[in-house]
Amino acid sequence: MADITPVLERADANLPKSLDRLFDLVRIKSISTDPAFKAECHTAAEWLVAELNALGFTASVRETPGHPMVVAHHVGARANAPHVLFYGHYDVQPVDPLNLWDAPPFEPAIREIEPGRKVITGRGTSDDKGQLMTFLEAVRAYKEVNDALPCRITILFEGEEESGSPSLKPFLEANAAELKADYALVCDTSMWDSETPAISAGLRGLVGEEIVIKAADRDLHSGYFGGAAANPIHILTDILAGLHDETGRITLENFYDGVEETPAQIKAAWDTLGQTAEKFLGQVGLSIPSGEKGRSVLELTWARPTAEVNGITGGYTGDGFKTVIAAQASAKVSFRLVGKQDPAKIREAFRAYARSKVPADCSVEFHPHGGSPAIHLPYDSSLLNTAKMALSDEWPKPAVVIGMGGSIPIVGDFQRMLGIESLLVGFGLSDDRIHSPNEKYELASFHKGIRSWIRILDALAA
Amino acid sequence: MADITPVLERADANLPKSLDRLFDLVRIKSISTDPAFKAECHTAAEWLVAELNALGFTASVRETPGHPMVVAHHVGARANAPHVLFYGHYDVQPVDPLNLWDAPPFEPAIREIEPGRKVITGRGTSDDKGQLMTFLEAVRAYKEVNDALPCRITILFEGEEESGSPSLKPFLEANAAELKADYALVCDTSMWDSETPAISAGLRGLVGEEIVIKAADRDLHSGYFGGAAANPIHILTDILAGLHDETGRITLENFYDGVEETPAQIKAAWDTLGQTAEKFLGQVGLSIPSGEKGRSVLELTWARPTAEVNGITGGYTGDGFKTVIAAQASAKVSFRLVGKQDPAKIREAFRAYARSKVPADCSVEFHPHGGSPAIHLPYDSSLLNTAKMALSDEWPKPAVVIGMGGSIPIVGDFQRMLGIESLLVGFGLSDDRIHSPNEKYELASFHKGIRSWIRILDALAA
Repeated sequence: MADITPVLERADANLPKSLDRLFDLVRIKSISTDPAFKAECHTAAEWLVAELNALGFTASVRETPGHPMVVAHHVGARANAPHVLFYGHYDVQPVDPLNLWDAPPFEPAIREIEPGRKVITGRGTSDDKGQLMTFLEAVRAYKEVNDALPCRITILFEGEEESGSPSLKPFLEANAAELKADYALVCDTSMWDSETPAISAGLRGLVGEEIVIKAADRDLHSGYFGGAAANPIHILTDILAGLHDETGRITLENFYDGVEETPAQIKAAWDTLGQTAEKFLGQVGLSIPSGEKGRSVLELTWARPTAEVNGITGGYTGDGFKTVIAAQASAKVSFRLVGKQDPAKIREAFRAYARSKVPADCSVEFHPHGGSPAIHLPYDSSLLNTAKMALSDEWPKPAVVIGMGGSIPIVGDFQRMLGIESLLVGFGLSDDRIHSPNEKYELASFHKGIRSWIRILDALAA
Repeated sequence: MADITPVLERADANLPKSLDRLFDLVRIKSISTDPAFKAECHTAAEWLVAELNALGFTASVRETPGHPMVVAHHVGARANAPHVLFYGHYDVQPVDPLNLWDAPPFEPAIREIEPGRKVITGRGTSDDKGQLMTFLEAVRAYKEVNDALPCRITILFEGEEESGSPSLKPFLEANAAELKADYALVCDTSMWDSETPAISAGLRGLVGEEIVIKAADRDLHSGYFGGAAANPIHILTDILAGLHDETGRITLENFYDGVEETPAQIKAAWDTLGQTAEKFLGQVGLSIPSGEKGRSVLELTWARPTAEVNGITGGYTGDGFKTVIAAQASAKVSFRLVGKQDPAKIREAFRAYARSKVPADCSVEFHPHGGSPAIHLPYDSSLLNTAKMALSDEWPKPAVVIGMGGSIPIVGDFQRMLGIESLLVGFGLSDDRIHSPNEKYELASFHKGIRSWIRILDALAA
């Protein structure tokens, strides 16, 4: 293992231009969930391919029925060096409500939000463009200094992560031989705090479902028909309100099948992190845990399943008032899964429950939006321990192994379809406002993220 | 009482031009609830003033803090003829969702929807521009034939009926002496069916209320925060779902104070109308009464109070899916009142109930949107009987005295502030799709409505 100091120094020297490149990528409005931005998603993929080819990869835009994949290959320095598959996604979340942004979401900028603390602002800076660019810039520094890479690297960038990844499984299936590696590096997660890097060993699964209740064949006047005609908003709110009991548990039949209590030693390790409801919720203006009673916020967000209504609409929602009984109402509902909960069974349990609440003269429609089981990685693999040490060399505090509330379905797909485990390392912070107005990424996350990948790649090749 | 045949014939001859005038008025986009259409509301008022002055009235646009009133006066033929106050409203409901209209809402047209049955299509054709124009065209025919009117007439047209009439009470108070008459004629109601005219003797009151639940200070990622952070959509759906018990009764404290059972002889009279749930709900694609169990649809819509959610919104409602926990969620809720239910007490009961359901780290805001008690007119007045006979002369079947599900707060305001009773006669049909896409008014309603007012004015003057 060569001295990596020159590579780290090169990364430091490159930083201004690394930021320019990130800004170029953030300016591309690659919102995957909104068809209006389809061309911009393609542009982002093309931009990445050009960057990768310039770095010596063999890269290409790979069309799918949705937004394209980017695949790139680079040989390693030594024949026996490991082969890693790096994954990130170039698509971003929608930006509404636009009026809550302090600056236009696709005009990235550096802001000093407190003395000595600079952040990069803009949609996608943290989720996931800033994160994936840490890896590309690590590769760049390595190549510039050594004219070679320590590992053989395959890259897969997706453009549908924020919209349920409909093309991913077919693509992995069709290209399994090409994408197969020794393990995957996935950069779409967070640090424990700004000084403590984290490796995520547990990821909740996700079931997304849209429900549409239809009643009368038109909007009705609530004076003429009110009291006699079915109101689809009432039916919908009744269904949604019934999803939780008074203890915060989810009421769907057999919902908790496959959910196990977190082992005592894991809970004890989490307790040492010093997290509290006041601290965790205080950062967003709340203080009282809302889910299952009697559990810590780390348990609630890392190790317990949820049912959340992510959106609801029906009837008149403009200014003023309209005395209407709507013809239909709809909601987007998601379930976070843990343990061995089966996404298909959870979806079916929700549908059966909802159907049971719909009067015979009304109807219900369901539209699935993605489903993936939870992932739990072994706490004791050498991959994980190597990365843990490399990260601990870079950051003020040692790396910790944590759970994660979010869902990264790719990890399960890599397990099942490529037969490889994933190392989940990312440099986001919990206050990055991903999926919200005013998303940001710490400048330190970007800079030290680049340096972290240099160290990790070097350690993996040793 | 002179022979009115020449006046009726003049109305028949005028019909094509009467329709032209109605179309001119419908083309004005006077949506009172949306501030974007403020200028159009003013234009509608000016248009009416010009028409009334041309008819020999002394008419003027009367500014208010909201949309203007139109007031006009015309002397009667004889000194002892009654003095009537005619009321209608020139404002209309919003037109969303626009894509459900078969033709642009503000481009009125005549369509033959079945052989021999023509309708006038467009927003406001039935509610209330077509209705108020029946009276103006009756006046026109009368003036053209007799150069005089049978009664002294004052006209009041309002421009805020669809947005809670905020300026009405102050205007009535400030102009009570000018607007005082022997009684009011209000044309904003429906017929029993296309052959049977109706006089409405009962009107439900209305309380409109917007509720906004606020939780975190920003939209949250449902992966990071889900299970621990309060979801305002859950709080809102819980509040709304709890408004009704399993028998369809409303759960608010003391909600039914002042609600009396309908007298047996009134119910018996209603039973002779042959209304059924299948017929009433079948016209809009439904079949099962949704409100309080064990009551007829006429009772449910004429004599029982309701709680309806007229609109709800929160979180991500666009295409695709967004795993967000919203910062806030809101709903528009209205209560239809009967008997002596007190709008202020109902509003306060709703607010107290909602507040009791909001966690301590979240907040709730309320925005009132109008409130008026129910109105019940005596079934045996001479005014009502005179109108009943005049209407029965015009239409195929005798006029019936009915209840009404909708709210016309003006009737209570006239009672309280001018000390006069109202005669509620209108020519709408229950399938006119008022407040919905594809609003229409029967051509027969317009034509025979004009002729009906000629007969009523003549009978009142006799």
